[in-house]
Amino acid sequence: MSEYPKSPLMGQMMSQPLLISSIIQHADRYFGNNEIVSRRVEGDIHRYTYRDCHRRARQLANALTGLGVRMGDRVATLAWNGYRHMEAYYAVSGSGAVLHTINPRLHPEQIAYITNHAEDQYLLFDATFLPLIEGVAAHCKTIKGFIMMCDRERMPAETGIANLLCYEDLLASCSDQYEWPLFDENSASSLCYTSGTTGNPKGALYSHRSTLLHSYASTMPDALNVSGRDTVLPVVPMFHVNAWGLPYSVPLTGAKMVFPGPALDGKSLFDLFEQEQVTFSAGVPTVWLGLLTHVAQNRLSFSSFKRTVIGGAACPPAMMKTLRDQYGIEVVHAWGMTEMSPLGTACTLQSKHYARPAEAQETILQKQGHVIYGVDMKIVDDAGTELAWDGKTYGNLLVKGPWVIDRYFKDEGGDVLEDGWFPTGDVATIDPDGYMQITDRNKDVIKSGGEWIGTIDLENIAMGHPSVLQAACIGIAHPKWDERPLLVVVKKPGQEVSREELLAYYEGKVAKWWTPDDVAFVEALPIGATGKILKNRIRDTFRDYQLSSAGNE
Amino acid sequence: MSEYPKSPLMGQMMSQPLLISSIIQHADRYFGNNEIVSRRVEGDIHRYTYRDCHRRARQLANALTGLGVRMGDRVATLAWNGYRHMEAYYAVSGSGAVLHTINPRLHPEQIAYITNHAEDQYLLFDATFLPLIEGVAAHCKTIKGFIMMCDRERMPAETGIANLLCYEDLLASCSDQYEWPLFDENSASSLCYTSGTTGNPKGALYSHRSTLLHSYASTMPDALNVSGRDTVLPVVPMFHVNAWGLPYSVPLTGAKMVFPGPALDGKSLFDLFEQEQVTFSAGVPTVWLGLLTHVAQNRLSFSSFKRTVIGGAACPPAMMKTLRDQYGIEVVHAWGMTEMSPLGTACTLQSKHYARPAEAQETILQKQGHVIYGVDMKIVDDAGTELAWDGKTYGNLLVKGPWVIDRYFKDEGGDVLEDGWFPTGDVATIDPDGYMQITDRNKDVIKSGGEWIGTIDLENIAMGHPSVLQAACIGIAHPKWDERPLLVVVKKPGQEVSREELLAYYEGKVAKWWTPDDVAFVEALPIGATGKILKNRIRDTFRDYQLSSAGNE
Repeated sequence: MSEYPKSPLMGQMMSQPLLISSIIQHADRYFGNNEIVSRRVEGDIHRYTYRDCHRRARQLANALTGLGVRMGDRVATLAWNGYRHMEAYYAVSGSGAVLHTINPRLHPEQIAYITNHAEDQYLLFDATFLPLIEGVAAHCKTIKGFIMMCDRERMPAETGIANLLCYEDLLASCSDQYEWPLFDENSASSLCYTSGTTGNPKGALYSHRSTLLHSYASTMPDALNVSGRDTVLPVVPMFHVNAWGLPYSVPLTGAKMVFPGPALDGKSLFDLFEQEQVTFSAGVPTVWLGLLTHVAQNRLSFSSFKRTVIGGAACPPAMMKTLRDQYGIEVVHAWGMTEMSPLGTACTLQSKHYARPAEAQETILQKQGHVIYGVDMKIVDDAGTELAWDGKTYGNLLVKGPWVIDRYFKDEGGDVLEDGWFPTGDVATIDPDGYMQITDRNKDVIKSGGEWIGTIDLENIAMGHPSVLQAACIGIAHPKWDERPLLVVVKKPGQEVSREELLAYYEGKVAKWWTPDDVAFVEALPIGATGKILKNRIRDTFRDYQLSSAGNE
Repeated sequence: MSEYPKSPLMGQMMSQPLLISSIIQHADRYFGNNEIVSRRVEGDIHRYTYRDCHRRARQLANALTGLGVRMGDRVATLAWNGYRHMEAYYAVSGSGAVLHTINPRLHPEQIAYITNHAEDQYLLFDATFLPLIEGVAAHCKTIKGFIMMCDRERMPAETGIANLLCYEDLLASCSDQYEWPLFDENSASSLCYTSGTTGNPKGALYSHRSTLLHSYASTMPDALNVSGRDTVLPVVPMFHVNAWGLPYSVPLTGAKMVFPGPALDGKSLFDLFEQEQVTFSAGVPTVWLGLLTHVAQNRLSFSSFKRTVIGGAACPPAMMKTLRDQYGIEVVHAWGMTEMSPLGTACTLQSKHYARPAEAQETILQKQGHVIYGVDMKIVDDAGTELAWDGKTYGNLLVKGPWVIDRYFKDEGGDVLEDGWFPTGDVATIDPDGYMQITDRNKDVIKSGGEWIGTIDLENIAMGHPSVLQAACIGIAHPKWDERPLLVVVKKPGQEVSREELLAYYEGKVAKWWTPDDVAFVEALPIGATGKILKNRIRDTFRDYQLSSAGNE
């Protein structure tokens, strides 16, 4: 912070850098016996404590140092949510190296691209990803060794990987005596690439300071509200945007941690929720869809699950309603992005809202919510002029804050800020109470006759229909209006619904000119590496689609 | 943080200093219409919003600048909890000056001493303190003006104060156009002197960084757990240790704030709790004693009050039980000190504790609790050797963290740290789960035959007796044992209890040699400027007391 003027009178408080290592030290010292439970890629359930995690993280830090990893070096992971991945989170960042989490759902070419771009020195991976690594290893130019996160017995007898190391062997060979170094809190701690649906992925380079401020802020009651009374199961992946910070915020509260590993199907998740008495979870809507389908089909109910944060994409109101009314689970809608560490907003009510009718409260809770203290936001028009907070006017959403990037790694994309604000690429409204609602991604918005049509609203309405499982709305070229909406729908298994019925379903719910011109039924929607629906893929599929309205208007 | 080495790879996150002004800006922008309600010294109830508060804080910042106040200058306040005091909190610190809150319960000589020591430039005071100011003004050498926090009508016609200014006149003359300056976050923000029961008061000089980190940390669910769903009434005074940080942590959540002004008697507090539907409060045990007495005498109950944090002194278990069992109020025991901004620990349960019997949970909740993430603690013997966390071994409690002082203002007392740790002067145990319990102040502990007797335990037992209102235990010189405990007791109105009955009450509750040797009944106990019982005053009173045990053993 040296660029800011100092007061003639400085405070006389202890000088301590905000470092990630302090979290695991705190968890060990104050919650040492509290549990971390993991469903492993090996298939079994593994249990140990924060104290064990800290001990093994110190061993791993010694191992990495022994391998020549130095401060600032990038160490990659390609792993599910599990205890070994957690050890890597603390060992790599804690020792001053940079944890580069890679999304295994990216295309192998993209994976090779980002390891080369990041100049990763080592890559730790879960055994399930061995075939993937065998395919890309030769293309990863800077990687000196691939560390397979398993014991000696599970290592492959033969492999084409030049320098394959065994994680458990490495740890066993190292002392657990390790002093976490103290260094400048603005040092890089971790690196995450955007999913790169357009162009090459770009890296967000987090610092220890940004990570710790994000941890404090996201733990607060109006954000994730994590406490030592919780048992937390992060469904959001540690391989992308740090599982919304939960690998940091959960240990600092001492809450019991439950990692689901690769088993993210409805049944596996439900069984783990029940066995470990999970109270709190976080994930994208598509994951809850699988879980709720399993629960409904088997007429199950949750015995401990109380609260979930849903983000990554707008949660359909129908899903929110099912979770709340049918299962008694509080849903907190949240929004953020890779470039924001990732949390920007969360939607919780304020005391004044409790006097309002249930329906009015519901309307608020469907929004993405208010900024978490530390973040600031505004909406602007294309000329950059700030727009009104009336809950109706929509504009480009800009943010700033100490856990927002000021540029991409290696300056990809150049100066990305607009007058100090980061342009999110989202289009949103903000109401007079400061609650933000995403109406669309800037690139997904449908431009019809010079006006904008927000696709999220149209999709939410469709998903409110009892026969619709998933819906996506895209713009189709139109000779008169430039673009008109096409609704692409996946029906629920065994359910039927017609084009006409669906279009009629919009009556009275939106302005008439917002109603889609047509409906296309498909078997499934393409899902991207971060669990979001890939609209550009849908647009490709329907590139030559002829709207019935195009000919006769 | 420049003294720590930088990584070759620094994070690429936005650089924003942690400044107090960001809190009121956030409150205005996101919770602008939420209320601040104040019972004023004028007697009436005043209502306005965070937006109003921010506007008037900007006017005050302009006023202070106009008066010549510069960055680093100290501006003192002598005021109750109220909206004008809140405006001063943000105007003074936000503009880069240093808010020096003065405890009006200090002796006038001490008040003059600390204004001179702090070199205060201006002093803002509530109208109730006019006589006090008239008495000390001439002794305050550095103060250029005394600003009376009222409107023109209430200003005294005649006064001996040389430069008396009217707060509302000052504000009315100033624009609300003011840009909060950006500066180094380690700049001094506020100054609070210890109560100085021994020697001259010493100043703790907080920084913007320490204040903001304390705000984030204290807002978390396992600390104060403040959310936008709360209506918060801080009984803890803004004139001492920043009302436990609530003037910062409440606005950042947007919770409705209710200030009690000078009316801290049971009836006034109860009425305000009910009128404003307060959900959360914080105070020292002596305040709750008055409130609970009023409620019991009038057979009242609370309709909205759900949770309170009690600190400043150990809360008698009997009071905790009454609040919980009789009124359904969750009590969170907390501990801290001026030198810690002030919060160090809070006592909340973890998920594993809920399986334990109610009595075992109760035992945990009576402790001062676990450290708030950011703070670290240890207990050591007189040689500085760290002692075991077994819940029995007691030793000197040391702390460190980014909101703990590293020296006193103007270096009073010299190097106060012990190998980087701040010695709290408290004696405590820490149990295997990391829960700390204060057994005594170092200077209050009774040394009997080479062993230590903790007085807090003895006092808590006495206060569990149905006839005892307050109790204090002090050491009395003894020819054989050096010191032996004397129990000093205030009986409940209309209740009787004998010396013999009280001493018999200890049987089976403590080791026999811990039982006090004698009981003295008094009308009242001396209470200090921060609401704590003044044991040194009691020791003075009983300096020549002859224990009945002293002669015949």
